[in-house]
Amino acid sequence: MEIYLDSNATTRPLPAAMEAIANAMADGYGNPSSPHSRGAAARSALARSREAIAAFAGGAPEELVLTSGGTESNNLVFSSLAKRIGRPRVAVSAAEHPSVMMPAETVAMGRLTILPLRGDGTLDLEALSAELDEGLDLVSVQWASGETGVVQPIVEVARLCRAKGVPLHSDAAQAFGRVPLRLNESGVNLATLSAHKMHGPVGVGALWARGKGLLTAAMFGGGQQGGMRSGTENVPGAAGFAAACSARAQRFDDDVKGMAELRDSFERAVLGRTPDAVVNGVVAERLCNTSSIRFEGVDGQALVAQLDRAGIMCSQTSACSSGRPEPSATLLAMGLSEAEAWSTVRFSFSVENTASEAAEAAREVAEAVTRLRRFVVLR
Amino acid sequence: MEIYLDSNATTRPLPAAMEAIANAMADGYGNPSSPHSRGAAARSALARSREAIAAFAGGAPEELVLTSGGTESNNLVFSSLAKRIGRPRVAVSAAEHPSVMMPAETVAMGRLTILPLRGDGTLDLEALSAELDEGLDLVSVQWASGETGVVQPIVEVARLCRAKGVPLHSDAAQAFGRVPLRLNESGVNLATLSAHKMHGPVGVGALWARGKGLLTAAMFGGGQQGGMRSGTENVPGAAGFAAACSARAQRFDDDVKGMAELRDSFERAVLGRTPDAVVNGVVAERLCNTSSIRFEGVDGQALVAQLDRAGIMCSQTSACSSGRPEPSATLLAMGLSEAEAWSTVRFSFSVENTASEAAEAAREVAEAVTRLRRFVVLR
Repeated sequence: MEIYLDSNATTRPLPAAMEAIANAMADGYGNPSSPHSRGAAARSALARSREAIAAFAGGAPEELVLTSGGTESNNLVFSSLAKRIGRPRVAVSAAEHPSVMMPAETVAMGRLTILPLRGDGTLDLEALSAELDEGLDLVSVQWASGETGVVQPIVEVARLCRAKGVPLHSDAAQAFGRVPLRLNESGVNLATLSAHKMHGPVGVGALWARGKGLLTAAMFGGGQQGGMRSGTENVPGAAGFAAACSARAQRFDDDVKGMAELRDSFERAVLGRTPDAVVNGVVAERLCNTSSIRFEGVDGQALVAQLDRAGIMCSQTSACSSGRPEPSATLLAMGLSEAEAWSTVRFSFSVENTASEAAEAAREVAEAVTRLRRFVVLR
Repeated sequence: MEIYLDSNATTRPLPAAMEAIANAMADGYGNPSSPHSRGAAARSALARSREAIAAFAGGAPEELVLTSGGTESNNLVFSSLAKRIGRPRVAVSAAEHPSVMMPAETVAMGRLTILPLRGDGTLDLEALSAELDEGLDLVSVQWASGETGVVQPIVEVARLCRAKGVPLHSDAAQAFGRVPLRLNESGVNLATLSAHKMHGPVGVGALWARGKGLLTAAMFGGGQQGGMRSGTENVPGAAGFAAACSARAQRFDDDVKGMAELRDSFERAVLGRTPDAVVNGVVAERLCNTSSIRFEGVDGQALVAQLDRAGIMCSQTSACSSGRPEPSATLLAMGLSEAEAWSTVRFSFSVENTASEAAEAAREVAEAVTRLRRFVVLR
């Protein structure tokens, strides 16, 4: 038995995405820069993929720079900023992924402000306003947290930034496909998209930019993508990303509703069996698929391992390559203690999960928590 | 009918590579950083892929940084150099791809030397020696040209660089799979590898580095690949790259011999029908699959278009995103006039081509050249 509840780490590509990739590699192989009909076919295919991705994100195809994923997209925002402004003044939310936090620290060289969160996980807008009054060159606030699922008031954030003429970047890697982005209407200037959190392939993402003035190429070479991102375009990857976007766009409301029902029934069942469990960020608007639950006195890492033995895949915080991770900065910023952060486990659903999986997982979670607590007491 | 002779632009992924990719996306999906058995399986699969790629390149798995392709690998060499040394002294061959030439120009800020080629397309080693005497921080010389196929005397170049303690980078994107690299024995310090020129997937490449001292991360985030290249690893892409490497490794001599026979029979047939045609770089050691031929008085771009109408796919120089490309810098550096460079067309074979394709293509080339020459005369 396997119940995969780690879809904020990665998801299985949809059959339609896999088929699009296979077709692009077989009949559709070709370099979009080649001066013959196979090259032209690859160019057309790539253009169609860009259209599908842009349409679902609510932007225009020419506003997308295709990248190798969310990390490259986030880095491109900050490397561009550093080329435009030496030692820029930057503010980012305390909930940002390391691929935002680390480049922001690098380029700001001591002029980075970490904007605090409120207890519900949303950004402290007063703190943002105060920083904007001081003068900023860029604000970066994620669309939604991959750890807690908390959705940021991004339109309000954008309104505040726009009033001061400060560009806003939003890492939407976790939000894309789970909340409507409507990028063109959002007020956001730059947004990071990723394919593999929404049943597209890994190794493909995009940076959406309203107007190219905020972007400067980070990679040089053949001048692909209007010079903004050299390198032979990943035509199969883009086709897979586009297929995932089209599939989600077609049944967006049903998919979101389905994931929310799974998540809610799971949380009800877990809390029914373990009444002292606490859902982090529960009072905020949250992604339909994400459940961050803390179990007092339980080592989250041990719980993840116990559940793994039972075939249930989940994790503590964002996937991280280090051995034992740091306690979640997001949870600490919400006011949790280190012990509370360590006792938290994240469950993230996808459209591939079923109601019986949610029920079975909740049962196993409760049992494992009981076992672990008994173990602690006996020790 | 289609005869694809543009394998230096890209190749069709092997069935074995496509199968490896499909398996990695279906049963094998998972984030290598996830703390559960699906994550562990992805980590193992990624490690096996790295081993297969490294083994075929003649290096060690831990010496590989997986990237999104040759362009990223080449850029990483120079961004690393710039972080190590402000305004470094750099020498590159005149035959380098834009993804070497442009970052080299950018980081060297006026301290870039373009090393001349000899008439046969190989590097002028005396010029290199003279530059090394002046003092350099990095030399970059491609392993082989994608335009002419000319293989550089890379071991000799490495010997000269090593004698002066100057690190050597070699862009082996076109050489990998076509000549044995034996990286560990080559004397080269850094080498760029790409999957999609050798029937692996596009969007995947690697930078091999002997010792990590020459590398500094260009992308920050989750700290994957020992912090050298953050971002969720492209497990399916690496699996496809590995499958292409393993397949080529298994029958390397036969594959190379087969491509050389196709190329040679094609050249004999073209020269038999068009005796004044000239094979660029013919006296040098060349890649088994590449034929760069000039037809005096013929516009190469028109020839490419005529052949495309007959179902034969080839190109003039390296695939380039601009409209009408520049005349090939490589050919000019070999002493060709602009007119000669413009009258050149590149044909690049793969193991998927057949002897009858080579014969048919040669016939069509001769006919198209005759037609174009008549047209010019009539006009």
